[in-house]
Amino acid sequence: MTTAADTPPVLIDGLQYCNWSREIFLEMRKGGLTAIHATVGYHEGFRETVRHLVDWRTRFRDNEDLILLARDSGDIERARATNRTAIFLGLQNPMPIEDDIGLIEMLFDLGIRFMQLTYNNQSLLGCGWMEEEDSGVTRMGREAIAEMNRLGMIIDLSHAGQRTALETIALSQRPVVISHANPRWLRDSNRNVPKAVLRALRERQGMLGLSLYPLHLPNGSDTTLNQFGNMAAEASEIMGAEHLGIGSDLCQNQPDSVVRWMREGRWTREMQAAASFPPRPSWFGSNLDFSRLSEGLLSAGFGKAETSLVLGGAWHRFIKASLPFGS
Amino acid sequence: MTTAADTPPVLIDGLQYCNWSREIFLEMRKGGLTAIHATVGYHEGFRETVRHLVDWRTRFRDNEDLILLARDSGDIERARATNRTAIFLGLQNPMPIEDDIGLIEMLFDLGIRFMQLTYNNQSLLGCGWMEEEDSGVTRMGREAIAEMNRLGMIIDLSHAGQRTALETIALSQRPVVISHANPRWLRDSNRNVPKAVLRALRERQGMLGLSLYPLHLPNGSDTTLNQFGNMAAEASEIMGAEHLGIGSDLCQNQPDSVVRWMREGRWTREMQAAASFPPRPSWFGSNLDFSRLSEGLLSAGFGKAETSLVLGGAWHRFIKASLPFGS
Repeated sequence: MTTAADTPPVLIDGLQYCNWSREIFLEMRKGGLTAIHATVGYHEGFRETVRHLVDWRTRFRDNEDLILLARDSGDIERARATNRTAIFLGLQNPMPIEDDIGLIEMLFDLGIRFMQLTYNNQSLLGCGWMEEEDSGVTRMGREAIAEMNRLGMIIDLSHAGQRTALETIALSQRPVVISHANPRWLRDSNRNVPKAVLRALRERQGMLGLSLYPLHLPNGSDTTLNQFGNMAAEASEIMGAEHLGIGSDLCQNQPDSVVRWMREGRWTREMQAAASFPPRPSWFGSNLDFSRLSEGLLSAGFGKAETSLVLGGAWHRFIKASLPFGS
Repeated sequence: MTTAADTPPVLIDGLQYCNWSREIFLEMRKGGLTAIHATVGYHEGFRETVRHLVDWRTRFRDNEDLILLARDSGDIERARATNRTAIFLGLQNPMPIEDDIGLIEMLFDLGIRFMQLTYNNQSLLGCGWMEEEDSGVTRMGREAIAEMNRLGMIIDLSHAGQRTALETIALSQRPVVISHANPRWLRDSNRNVPKAVLRALRERQGMLGLSLYPLHLPNGSDTTLNQFGNMAAEASEIMGAEHLGIGSDLCQNQPDSVVRWMREGRWTREMQAAASFPPRPSWFGSNLDFSRLSEGLLSAGFGKAETSLVLGGAWHRFIKASLPFGS
């Protein structure tokens, strides 16, 4: 007989971009991860993205005892029932859809479930946080929002500029997410999220995934687990635990060439700032540490139920609503 | 109450490549077509094929009262229940998979359910019927056969050379099809099928779709409906009606530039023979004429049940076995 006590907690990470390997998938299992959202690419066009998706299919086959491709929330239940981790695939940049609105549906059918409308720079759809001027959602951006809404592909605003973020939240007929970012008032970077955006996000039933990437944390790589918990508590004051999750931005085993690819793509010949990965906080080095985040949350005053929500329950509920079984 | 008499017969065409339009989809409905296999492309690479697939999605949306994208046999039942035509998509050439075995799965996920291993020329997978020397299934060809078998994508040998056809039939773990061709002994063209290939096809539970393309018919454009029926009777002696269907090769409203594209692609600068569409037989000009084929079959001695098999029952059974609901 299975009792409630036997059922492992739902742990979901809203964003990872590791140098994927069987070792990392084994750590996901040991760490008890129910599901993650994994980034497939940044600056790749459609054809290169398909190459990455083919590589993902190979990973799923080679590690079918550990992971599975998640297309909807039913796959989360399938993963739980078979002790595997459900992996949702996503894009951090809309480059893969090129300027063809129909490619959103093609990528959806190939398994993509999250897409950012912008990465750091201005895109065809809107504006990223690193541009000086954010002119908001473009003509094609409105089409893309409607098409993603139609299909159920989740809109992610993690790297959006503030105007683009606010306009998207207002335009989208479905709740959107900021899969990995932190409150801006605790770490002043345009990459983090101001209160106005969080409030709008919450009002439309959106999700915030708290980032563990050092440049997003209040005290960088030296941020303590308690400080992380306190940050979560402040975010929770706006979002509520039921709309708060983790988006660790874990980039395990990636060489520095990858952070340069993220920042520079092929759009510049100049080296950009922060072209190496900063050291991760001592208390979060891999998926093995995921459940330890509960210590920081509990110490900051989260109750047990709220802690469960932040570590996966809120993402679980969001995905069940956004990608219902059979969708 | 619905009685058996109210249920329209299952009519399935194993190959069409029309200049698609709402008018043609309306004719499919008026003609009572339950399902067809529609060609998506010939010489296009992966990216161009995806563009065609996007166009198909638009057609399905714009004509959702008439047609639907068929992914498995369940969609045939869905089409019947809603008075629409189920359209299975296929490729006449493996160019869209380029030299990446993983693209077969990508195209399967995007809706492709049939693929020829070769068109007229030698391909990366095997040899087409117009080459002088057929060296059989290649190294990648064996991989493609196994991958198509794994996924359930149906192997079509309509344009294969004889050796490639026989080797593929032997190698494939699933029944294969020749979606549109006729017995070679009634029209001597290497494009048609010799007895040895038909026998091997039948032995492995494969399907032959009889072609109505004039160059494949015993008497070209002047072939009569009775002659067609007699040809079907001869094919049936080897295949049996339960493995015999129609693959009309209907190319309605296509300009001659399209037959040149089929024959010449971009592989030659020289005009190839037969660079215009021959006139269709007077008794088969469009989907409106499909059910009239029963006259030819009945006059050649087919019984009612056998006629139903050839006009769709055999394809229906084959698709139910090859692409079961939920596959």
